[in-house]
Amino acid sequence: MTPANTPLPETRTAQFVVERRIRFGDCDPAGIVFFPRYFEMLNSVVEDWWQHIGKPWTEMITQRRIGTPVVHVDTTFLIPSLMGDTLQFHLSVEKIGNASLGLLHSAFGADGKERLRFRQQLVATSLETHRPIPWPEDIRQAITQFKKSP
Amino acid sequence: MTPANTPLPETRTAQFVVERRIRFGDCDPAGIVFFPRYFEMLNSVVEDWWQHIGKPWTEMITQRRIGTPVVHVDTTFLIPSLMGDTLQFHLSVEKIGNASLGLLHSAFGADGKERLRFRQQLVATSLETHRPIPWPEDIRQAITQFKKSP
Amino acid sequence: MTPANTPLPETRTAQFVVERRIRFGDCDPAGIVFFPRYFEMLNSVVEDWWQHIGKPWTEMITQRRIGTPVVHVDTTFLIPSLMGDTLQFHLSVEKIGNASLGLLHSAFGADGKERLRFRQQLVATSLETHRPIPWPEDIRQAITQFKKSP
Amino acid sequence: MTPANTPLPETRTAQFVVERRIRFGDCDPAGIVFFPRYFEMLNSVVEDWWQHIGKPWTEMITQRRIGTPVVHVDTTFLIPSLMGDTLQFHLSVEKIGNASLGLLHSAFGADGKERLRFRQQLVATSLETHRPIPWPEDIRQAITQFKKSP
Repeated sequence: MTPANTPLPETRTAQFVVERRIRFGDCDPAGIVFFPRYFEMLNSVVEDWWQHIGKPWTEMITQRRIGTPVVHVDTTFLIPSLMGDTLQFHLSVEKIGNASLGLLHSAFGADGKERLRFRQQLVATSLETHRPIPWPEDIRQAITQFKKSP
Repeated sequence: MTPANTPLPETRTAQFVVERRIRFGDCDPAGIVFFPRYFEMLNSVVEDWWQHIGKPWTEMITQRRIGTPVVHVDTTFLIPSLMGDTLQFHLSVEKIGNASLGLLHSAFGADGKERLRFRQQLVATSLETHRPIPWPEDIRQAITQFKKSP
Repeated sequence: MTPANTPLPETRTAQFVVERRIRFGDCDPAGIVFFPRYFEMLNSVVEDWWQHIGKPWTEMITQRRIGTPVVHVDTTFLIPSLMGDTLQFHLSVEKIGNASLGLLHSAFGADGKERLRFRQQLVATSLETHRPIPWPEDIRQAITQFKKSP
Repeated sequence: MTPANTPLPETRTAQFVVERRIRFGDCDPAGIVFFPRYFEMLNSVVEDWWQHIGKPWTEMITQRRIGTPVVHVDTTFLIPSLMGDTLQFHLSVEKIGNASLGLLHSAFGADGKERLRFRQQLVATSLETHRPIPWPEDIRQAITQFKKSP
């Protein structure tokens, strides 16, 4: 899918990196993370990223009434995680559309092995009309600034 | 991906149908379902289905020490849902492999419109070794019996 | 605390009874219900009760902008519950104040033994001012109607 | 309940202090924290405290098969919290029994006002027999060391 001469994602994009510790309450009777919990972690990572780029949800949702609902997420669970593990989430911007945003997330264990991968698509919406809206220019700039040029 | 002369999924597979009511606690400050909650619903639907085919997790996990971790799930969020809505989940078996199982889930609103779609892949594992195992014959039969022949 | 000649709660109050099934996702690595999950069940029982008395939260919160936040809950965990168990929740009204409401919840296992007990106090608030308001008369009547006279 | 000449809790006990940030996913359609979420935070604070005193659950539960189920928790919700707020949780040991442990938790907002208070009682149990056991001596010492003498 990627032409051979395309730089690797690591060299092409800025990455936002945060850690999440796996807690007792994240795990199930099989002793591993209950998979819906990963999506809460994912959402908290995205929440932290919006804050990192200067557009916290407290401002976007509460004041500007802009929502960013998830329209698609494709998830691959590679290696299970246990209570006490720390996962390092790496977020990068794959694509910025008129009203859409494609994010790629990889979560790694302490051994550096990838445990999870998410491809997530968000859409900017008005919380008044619940319809898609183009990214406001300041938000687009904040996202784009984050995304290093190819 | 599907040849034109392939029967539609509805005519090819048995469907397991259950309802889930959207609760206050499922919803977020934007007033719609907090998307990680959909994966809890999804998991509860699968739990009900295993019971329906006579292989409840209480028996599989606790007694036989067989896990069915999710290895992949591809989710499309089509229409948001609100507190008080009732979603009808339709589960069908897409593919049974040696140790794997492909499920397709669609959730519909009261108006009959599809709100969510999940393609989910599970793997049978030993909870002792945490490695894949072939589906035990009785479980394979229970799954296959459910899946109508093409 | 209760004078000896006071009738038992069972004879004094109407009870709202609903069942909740303990799911895989409710349980923790120790194999029993992760205790914060009981509070989600509790909240869903209260949600069902408001609907039962004709005052669903969809109407109260969304249309009338009346909230019923919990101000106090005292919980006793008597017997742990396991995946697959069904709990029967019994809700009764203990006290109706100007803006407050005292509920008593007991949850029983299939063997009839009490597993959990909650004493919960709610307050009616305006979701505009976030301050307590007297129960509107129609809501007070709905609650009172439910509470059998002594 | 406390004799007038008893030193205040603040002067009598060591406190374990950790912060928790209120996230989007913790909040409900009324815009405030969905109260069951506070119990997840509470449990994570206790989890961090056990680690802090050198007895992490990964060791206690997984290796030594000692559980610490909650038998009672009395919670007062004083002031609601919003997305983006940071709560400072203060944990102190109130009482160490043969197999029991009484903890007091207060959570404060950035303005220093108390928002929540929990009185929580735990019991040491064998995860093999699911029955109470006396605190093993090393664990008792770890707890006691934390609790400053009166």
